Amino acid sequence: MKLAVLGVGLIGGSIGLAARERLGASVAGYDPDPSTLRLGSVNGALSRSCTSVEQACAGADVVLCCAPVGRLPDLVGQALVASGSKAVVTDVGSVKGELCRAHSSDERFIGGHPLAGAETAGIEHARADLFDGARWYLTPGSGTRGTLYDRLQRLIADLGARPQAIDAETHDRELATVSHLPHVLANVLVSLAATAPTEGDRPTEIGPSFRDATRVAGANPAMWRDIFLANGPALATALDTAVDQLRDASELVRAGDDTALLEWIEQARADRARLAAGRGDAGPAQELRVTVANRPGVVAELALALGRAGVNIEDMSLHPAHDGQTGAISLWVTGDQETARARELVQGLGHAVTRSGGQG
Amino acid sequence: MKLAVLGVGLIGGSIGLAARERLGASVAGYDPDPSTLRLGSVNGALSRSCTSVEQACAGADVVLCCAPVGRLPDLVGQALVASGSKAVVTDVGSVKGELCRAHSSDERFIGGHPLAGAETAGIEHARADLFDGARWYLTPGSGTRGTLYDRLQRLIADLGARPQAIDAETHDRELATVSHLPHVLANVLVSLAATAPTEGDRPTEIGPSFRDATRVAGANPAMWRDIFLANGPALATALDTAVDQLRDASELVRAGDDTALLEWIEQARADRARLAAGRGDAGPAQELRVTVANRPGVVAELALALGRAGVNIEDMSLHPAHDGQTGAISLWVTGDQETARARELVQGLGHAVTRSGGQG
Repeated sequence: MKLAVLGVGLIGGSIGLAARERLGASVAGYDPDPSTLRLGSVNGALSRSCTSVEQACAGADVVLCCAPVGRLPDLVGQALVASGSKAVVTDVGSVKGELCRAHSSDERFIGGHPLAGAETAGIEHARADLFDGARWYLTPGSGTRGTLYDRLQRLIADLGARPQAIDAETHDRELATVSHLPHVLANVLVSLAATAPTEGDRPTEIGPSFRDATRVAGANPAMWRDIFLANGPALATALDTAVDQLRDASELVRAGDDTALLEWIEQARADRARLAAGRGDAGPAQELRVTVANRPGVVAELALALGRAGVNIEDMSLHPAHDGQTGAISLWVTGDQETARARELVQGLGHAVTRSGGQG
Repeated sequence: MKLAVLGVGLIGGSIGLAARERLGASVAGYDPDPSTLRLGSVNGALSRSCTSVEQACAGADVVLCCAPVGRLPDLVGQALVASGSKAVVTDVGSVKGELCRAHSSDERFIGGHPLAGAETAGIEHARADLFDGARWYLTPGSGTRGTLYDRLQRLIADLGARPQAIDAETHDRELATVSHLPHVLANVLVSLAATAPTEGDRPTEIGPSFRDATRVAGANPAMWRDIFLANGPALATALDTAVDQLRDASELVRAGDDTALLEWIEQARADRARLAAGRGDAGPAQELRVTVANRPGVVAELALALGRAGVNIEDMSLHPAHDGQTGAISLWVTGDQETARARELVQGLGHAVTRSGGQG
């Protein structure tokens, strides 16, 4: 497997390290900053340093664009031009809608976003295990070529992450709420604390819970400006909802209604528990074999349908038929309930499905 | 030194442990829950278990009310009735205004609030080093007896904390911003994430920065309801300010003004750095000796004036004169600048002051 990594920061560098150590992949790297590129070679993230996007992409099976959000539209465009017809091109930016719309006509592009590495930045923090167990969103479009999606999601699973297909717009709405909004709130909190009307010159004292709540405040200004801009509409909507809820909270507090306040906090307790629980370990993966027409978008359609329903595809494998018109897809899903649900959904899309081992 | 601890949870238990281990103090404890009381004895926080407030307070030099905020008004009242005329009575609640107003006529009461222990609760988490280096606010009133303030702040420093006098209303406004508001925001964040319009049944995925931002969401509902209620007006004001700032942020994002967005994030970065920096180590403490009229409130007045100006009193010692009409107070302050500032402030209040060692 030959990878090209465009942008050798924390994410690009960690992809390189994991791919070389775990898959024995060859990793060609490009970075506009020569010292970053040098560090990437020195620490073992790159097999080869390249002086241009074109040089890095030549002959690559997978091209990963790992630049900051603001630079991705140009970089992905350049990568698609520089890459071969059988390459898959992806990115790792935290906003997907605009980028995916811009490249929806190219069946080689699939947006991506690993939920990892927010705490630090830079190649000097790169490590092979950065993605272990982390969610890695993929946003295939209706034109995405199935074999390329398969190759990409397999690579991502091999890097240690948990790939999941998601619609690009849904991704952006969710990230607006669980990532971009918390950043804005952290900024507002430090601003309020720093300008709080203390007496005289005494600095405002902050405790550990304030530090926790504002850990991300003001982090990496240029990067976050670009994220806020790229996800503007979804973030503005999330902010409006937050404003509504804060106004409700303010009224509750002003009214001094102890029953309603207690209910409100207990609801937050339940919400937090629900979010934290996520999905537990559900036993060994079970294989579902799906017969499909061999047309573009069918893999994306399946992956998105299951993703939407909360069913995690642990692994996926494509078996094109000799006639080139149909094919089979094996999906591995864990948990009896999830497997049954997956089956139902796949059938609902009009595909034949059997449980592997003849139990189907 | 004889202490009474009323309420043997995390804070009360830790006070007991620190006071016994570090000061060899005798600690009488009372708790309405017999099993909590038993645990307090077993783990060494208490020298003596008492079955009533009266029994615990009998003969105590310092009475510490360590109940949840909602129970403090009653408990402090009971403690003042049960304690001797030479005892100082304090509490550890995170809202001070109402409680201090209610007991302002009693020169033995001084409100208190250690910024420690928010992560856990219960006697089983108590430890002698809980307060090491932690800010411990004290809210003396104009009627507070100076010798009692002195005794209390010394005890708190000996427990390992950093006592600081602050006006009760200022305390509540500040805590509304740096503690109570972040709790409300965390609750709102989990509520938004839990009800985010995901597709189908897929649970919303949260990352480490979301977990950091919402660590306190829904924690201890009854306790936080009481804090929100007790600090209602200040919290509602902080919420309104937060709403205004979020609306501004929403407009910035909608307008897509990259320069203004970058400036806004960079301001947050600067605010955070300023809050985090706090006050560094400033060398050995210097003694200032202040001559004062021996009247109630003079110690509180001094402590508050210095606290307001951001000057930290590292230690304090009272030397009443034989005539009973005047006295001297030694204040230890670190840093040349802070010492000079302290001197200026003390002189501004009309007191004579000398630098100890004849340099004054």
